[in-house]
Amino acid sequence: MCRWIAYSGSPVLLSRILFEPAHNLIDQSLHSRMGVETTNGDGFGIGWYVPHARTPAVLRDTGPAWSNRNLREVATHVTSGLFFAHIRATTGTAVQQTNCHPFRWGRWLWMHNGAIAEHPRLRRDLALAVDPALYPDIEGSTDSELMFFLALTLGLEHDPPDAVARMAGLIEETGERHGVAHPLQMTVAVADGTRLWAFRYSSQRASRSLYYSTEVDALRALHPDVTFLRDLSDDTRLVVSEPLGDLPGAWNEVPESTYGVVEPGHDALHDFQPLRPARTG
Amino acid sequence: MCRWIAYSGSPVLLSRILFEPAHNLIDQSLHSRMGVETTNGDGFGIGWYVPHARTPAVLRDTGPAWSNRNLREVATHVTSGLFFAHIRATTGTAVQQTNCHPFRWGRWLWMHNGAIAEHPRLRRDLALAVDPALYPDIEGSTDSELMFFLALTLGLEHDPPDAVARMAGLIEETGERHGVAHPLQMTVAVADGTRLWAFRYSSQRASRSLYYSTEVDALRALHPDVTFLRDLSDDTRLVVSEPLGDLPGAWNEVPESTYGVVEPGHDALHDFQPLRPARTG
Amino acid sequence: MCRWIAYSGSPVLLSRILFEPAHNLIDQSLHSRMGVETTNGDGFGIGWYVPHARTPAVLRDTGPAWSNRNLREVATHVTSGLFFAHIRATTGTAVQQTNCHPFRWGRWLWMHNGAIAEHPRLRRDLALAVDPALYPDIEGSTDSELMFFLALTLGLEHDPPDAVARMAGLIEETGERHGVAHPLQMTVAVADGTRLWAFRYSSQRASRSLYYSTEVDALRALHPDVTFLRDLSDDTRLVVSEPLGDLPGAWNEVPESTYGVVEPGHDALHDFQPLRPARTG
Amino acid sequence: MCRWIAYSGSPVLLSRILFEPAHNLIDQSLHSRMGVETTNGDGFGIGWYVPHARTPAVLRDTGPAWSNRNLREVATHVTSGLFFAHIRATTGTAVQQTNCHPFRWGRWLWMHNGAIAEHPRLRRDLALAVDPALYPDIEGSTDSELMFFLALTLGLEHDPPDAVARMAGLIEETGERHGVAHPLQMTVAVADGTRLWAFRYSSQRASRSLYYSTEVDALRALHPDVTFLRDLSDDTRLVVSEPLGDLPGAWNEVPESTYGVVEPGHDALHDFQPLRPARTG
Repeated sequence: MCRWIAYSGSPVLLSRILFEPAHNLIDQSLHSRMGVETTNGDGFGIGWYVPHARTPAVLRDTGPAWSNRNLREVATHVTSGLFFAHIRATTGTAVQQTNCHPFRWGRWLWMHNGAIAEHPRLRRDLALAVDPALYPDIEGSTDSELMFFLALTLGLEHDPPDAVARMAGLIEETGERHGVAHPLQMTVAVADGTRLWAFRYSSQRASRSLYYSTEVDALRALHPDVTFLRDLSDDTRLVVSEPLGDLPGAWNEVPESTYGVVEPGHDALHDFQPLRPARTG
Repeated sequence: MCRWIAYSGSPVLLSRILFEPAHNLIDQSLHSRMGVETTNGDGFGIGWYVPHARTPAVLRDTGPAWSNRNLREVATHVTSGLFFAHIRATTGTAVQQTNCHPFRWGRWLWMHNGAIAEHPRLRRDLALAVDPALYPDIEGSTDSELMFFLALTLGLEHDPPDAVARMAGLIEETGERHGVAHPLQMTVAVADGTRLWAFRYSSQRASRSLYYSTEVDALRALHPDVTFLRDLSDDTRLVVSEPLGDLPGAWNEVPESTYGVVEPGHDALHDFQPLRPARTG
Repeated sequence: MCRWIAYSGSPVLLSRILFEPAHNLIDQSLHSRMGVETTNGDGFGIGWYVPHARTPAVLRDTGPAWSNRNLREVATHVTSGLFFAHIRATTGTAVQQTNCHPFRWGRWLWMHNGAIAEHPRLRRDLALAVDPALYPDIEGSTDSELMFFLALTLGLEHDPPDAVARMAGLIEETGERHGVAHPLQMTVAVADGTRLWAFRYSSQRASRSLYYSTEVDALRALHPDVTFLRDLSDDTRLVVSEPLGDLPGAWNEVPESTYGVVEPGHDALHDFQPLRPARTG
Repeated sequence: MCRWIAYSGSPVLLSRILFEPAHNLIDQSLHSRMGVETTNGDGFGIGWYVPHARTPAVLRDTGPAWSNRNLREVATHVTSGLFFAHIRATTGTAVQQTNCHPFRWGRWLWMHNGAIAEHPRLRRDLALAVDPALYPDIEGSTDSELMFFLALTLGLEHDPPDAVARMAGLIEETGERHGVAHPLQMTVAVADGTRLWAFRYSSQRASRSLYYSTEVDALRALHPDVTFLRDLSDDTRLVVSEPLGDLPGAWNEVPESTYGVVEPGHDALHDFQPLRPARTG
């Protein structure tokens, strides 16, 4: 299992979010409180959007985030208004850069906490369901990257919530065909450079933790002394695997089987239910 | 493209073969003479058999062989009578440990120089041809590992030359179906702990270089002053991508479309031709 | 802070000691019970002696031990009767191979848990005290390697306990000159290929934990059902930062300010006191 | 030996300079034409200044530049008007991040091609000459970093050409005291965030190659069709170990024993001569 952060809002130096909060992602890499594993030291990644670039940038490496100097350098010198960060605890697949999140395809970023149950047994059938035109771009061996390519196959570029619902439905159907009781466990973040979607779902309806930050103007009213909040636009939002600090009123749980969408000037929560593939014949 | 060495014979310290000859594999990693690329710095690996172990050991890493201290440590402290060494120059797939040769499955080691032409386009169809029971063990993204799993699927454990011929035939048929002119280019080494097979073949009949060493007793007669030869048993053999040094009479080219087998007390060369899959229907 | 294991006795596959016990060193890298840090993921190393080699072999790498495949490969294929293993949690110096333990010089291996207090301030004076002929061999930036070179300077090759006592005295004197209250905290293991010494000491007399294993014949009498013990010679000994498992009667604390020596057929504990440099003039 | 590039001028995406020219630095890492070694695969680094940051950013890693994805990601997403890039071929010291250039201290960046002759023998005396207050910041083991700290000790922050001259004089004097014929070989680049200095010198007056780019307006007149030149300000300058391409008229050799200074709106070349330490007593 893993931990992740997705940020959308006023452009900030990445380190303001990644390194400065009390229980930041680096701290979580050593001492996660809510994760299945307390240590998340099997690689990390950040992905960030910059104006005028065709794709987001991705920096990933295989060692622990806590000792990686390049992560610290980039985070203390790069500013972005939409970025992802992820720390990995492998559930068995190799510790290698191509298995680190976030994954990128064109303008899209994807990251995941959770697992496809019995992934080795299901992997072949799921890989077959990937669009043959996309298949060559699969580089790693994780369930998480495979989920991304299934979502791309099922229309991520056109309707992300629908594509993720179809992906979840396909995984559940495939799992059941192989006799897997609870095939899917996921919190997923996906972005296209403007909007950010975050999903919380599991076949067992016992999903990994996921939180979103309170509206900035409400937080400012609660904490007039926190100077950092003054610099943030009203529509700034964080979605995180576990709260970054102990600021009262700052964090709200994403409900079970729910997804949220964050875009400039707007955000909302919606129910999430898998969509099973249509039976043919 | 890559360079490789396979050794079978008297147990020797690995460094005697890997580091001491004039144009050794480490030197080839910086200055290959016969490779498509002069630099082979995209990872390396060694695999060696030890008595009483269930599997061979494999040491692989992603940096260049020339500066890797762990390779030097192991090579100067480990003795084996059957081992592989490989240096990699990627043709595009990621530089990661799971893409480094040799690959291992059970007691089997496999390494490759060459390429499946237009591998990204053929990869999906070839992956589908892998035995579903073996599919979960594919860890990397190279054509070379895929070839190994196809050979395992097609009977490597029972009849290696036949399985490799079927693998080559399957790749050629798949390539032709996709309009690829010359689908396969390979020199391959495979071992089971006792025997060693080496294959030289390409669809275009213009295969990468491959050499085998002259019989040790003949070499000793030619070079009575080379003390190293005195320690080697008569059935010691090396198969290499390019000669390790300039010892006159030491190296012989493996002919085009040929494979060799080396086992204790015996070796031989045979013709090699791909076997096309039987048409069904 | 770090964790370490030193083994002397019947030749065993390294993995029998490193991977198989319940609370083995790999487990300690994730969940140390007695260390200052619970996570020891800033590199690791093993050093092992083999017959007929001029030096021990050393395998070190910068990532966590728990995910390192080369460590697992070597440990499951290499046998030794005298070896060290170490997992690192940096106290500030860079995570790099030359800062990983064990350190080697000629036939000597050295590893350390602890710290020189305010090492950055003392480092220059201590480096100046290293024999100029040895100075060029310092490769890393840790206090631990510097301690090794000070001990070599002060006679390690001739009388290890005396040299380590002089090293401790020199560090304490240097620290006091700089106003450092408690300059030294250490558990150290050192070996020459035949003998093994282990030291537990700190200026504050509050040293990091250190344990040694009970005599094998006594353990066998206590646990006639533990088959592993039947394979071990009577003089087999382990010295460890924290016990590897919960076998009752297996582990004994090395007393404060004490060192032990283990050699074939003999072992003993002795008092340890730093020896201050003689005042000149 | 190594290769390096220093850029000062109009803010550009780093990849415009690092990846796009015909014989760019990445190509030089595989096939240097003028370096002592054709392969420069022992690590790399980039350092870049960004507005409003207290220090420049540094990204360094130990593998070859040609296969490093993080380098490519940062170079294609980060813009700077003053940056360094370096590819390393070690002359013997460890391949580790702390030995990769550029080195940073506060706002200063430093990189080097060349060597202190018999560095292992001279290293201790030179390290002793470093200001004790700076000594704790030495992290690696290269001659290049030591040169940086000597220059800092000798006044780099106040008068860079004078400090580098004193550094060269100190190294030459130290070398001669140890009987080294030609102690110093260097091309060095140093920057403070506004200005860039580049030095070409060797004790033997046979210095490594160094080139600077022709004035942009003159180049534009020569090559009206090269669109890239239209985007560059008139005061944009590159200083490089070897020319990046074959644009006629674009490159000029820095003369032997010369240094150049580049700052917004101005640049100049000057003679360079080492300054020997004043004799005391």
